[in-house]
Amino acid sequence: MGEVPLSHPRYNSLMGRKLLTEAAADGMLADSALIAHGRGEAYDYLLGEATCESARTAITQSAILMKQAKRCVISVNGNAVALAAADLIRCAAVLQCPIEINIYYRTPERMTALNSRLKKVRIEVSNEEAPTGWKGNWQTAVSDVVILGMNPDSRIPNLEGPRANCCADGILNADVIFVPLEDGDRCEALMEMGKKMIVVDLNPLSRTARRATVTIVDELMRMAPILLFDLVNEVSNETPKWDNRANLDNSLAVMLRRLDE
Amino acid sequence: MGEVPLSHPRYNSLMGRKLLTEAAADGMLADSALIAHGRGEAYDYLLGEATCESARTAITQSAILMKQAKRCVISVNGNAVALAAADLIRCAAVLQCPIEINIYYRTPERMTALNSRLKKVRIEVSNEEAPTGWKGNWQTAVSDVVILGMNPDSRIPNLEGPRANCCADGILNADVIFVPLEDGDRCEALMEMGKKMIVVDLNPLSRTARRATVTIVDELMRMAPILLFDLVNEVSNETPKWDNRANLDNSLAVMLRRLDE
Repeated sequence: MGEVPLSHPRYNSLMGRKLLTEAAADGMLADSALIAHGRGEAYDYLLGEATCESARTAITQSAILMKQAKRCVISVNGNAVALAAADLIRCAAVLQCPIEINIYYRTPERMTALNSRLKKVRIEVSNEEAPTGWKGNWQTAVSDVVILGMNPDSRIPNLEGPRANCCADGILNADVIFVPLEDGDRCEALMEMGKKMIVVDLNPLSRTARRATVTIVDELMRMAPILLFDLVNEVSNETPKWDNRANLDNSLAVMLRRLDE
Repeated sequence: MGEVPLSHPRYNSLMGRKLLTEAAADGMLADSALIAHGRGEAYDYLLGEATCESARTAITQSAILMKQAKRCVISVNGNAVALAAADLIRCAAVLQCPIEINIYYRTPERMTALNSRLKKVRIEVSNEEAPTGWKGNWQTAVSDVVILGMNPDSRIPNLEGPRANCCADGILNADVIFVPLEDGDRCEALMEMGKKMIVVDLNPLSRTARRATVTIVDELMRMAPILLFDLVNEVSNETPKWDNRANLDNSLAVMLRRLDE
């Protein structure tokens, strides 16, 4: 795919497609990753390819939970790295939490490709200016972000296969997990462990979306800078009463209106 | 991906995913083909992964138009070949019409891979029993199906790029074109030429779906055997008044009900 001009009305969608096909060529993705991205594109089309009000609320709620966490972790798969590595590293730097690579079809080649990509992006981000409003030494904060996943030392209980492998310093002992693009079984197993799960899922009907603590029905590239903004600027220390089902229904209503127009 | 057991409740969806990833590995698909398939999966999920009543009606209408055509052609891209090569060859054999390969991102490698696959499947299908109800020499009927596209000698007017290349014996002079999984621009250009366009598109809001003569909102692997059945068994010689918009709205209503349930 060629260059995508910034002025294109569907810039975000075309850029996502480009990043994913490049990541596939770089060996970062399983066969089914592009298909999963396509499913997301279809739901995003129904959303009007914009962050809806209920998603905006869910992002703020997520920022509050992540900042209140005793041990937060950002769990990433291949698609998350392809689409939003830099913003996720920025979020981890602000929170001083680790990023853990956890993929469904685990192969040494893909793990190495993802780990290398994250380390490369970590260096790039560390050389940038700090996000507006953030105070401190940005270069140090970014360089201190630990990237886990290469050497899992634990397993998620009640979950089969290599996706159950995880790290004690990351997913296993975290109380709040931010997981873009999660699989349903793993979300359920982690909820069973009593963790607060924050997921980004464009399908408001998916098992992941229905089960999570907070579901952000939005496209990852679009929501990640907003989450970063809220992590830097949001000051609330209280958790307001959160009704995830009601919030999900509001996102669903946006799609219904569009189909019904 | 491993074997998909026939008893799996989502057999068709998982088999489609398997066929597409295998076709990608065989060099039959462009980068974006898997993403496009994923978009289809999402809409099919909203359809309940079943052929709805309005799709069933659209298939019968398509069979009538294809049988009435002076010159019918079946136009295929990589995804159509991956998912339904055998059934599309069976349909072409019943109609004694050509199949033309027409792809968006045309490369000699992909064209050769698709042409070889179709020729291989044509031999396999010619050695099968004829479809129930069909009379004649099946082996001859199948062997006579012409596969076009390797040597385009014409262009579709008002359409840019290699996807405009086509064959005089196929798309250029056809009056009825059956195109699974069509791109919007090409559908419009062919409609402008006065052709009857029959498309299979899981997104009832797409430009292709809104513009075509008959839109079948269904999954290709699921609808192809039904089309074949109608081509063999449907006897109507009349074209009833066809309201494609009304039919599309009925498919949309199925999705709306599912989102709203």
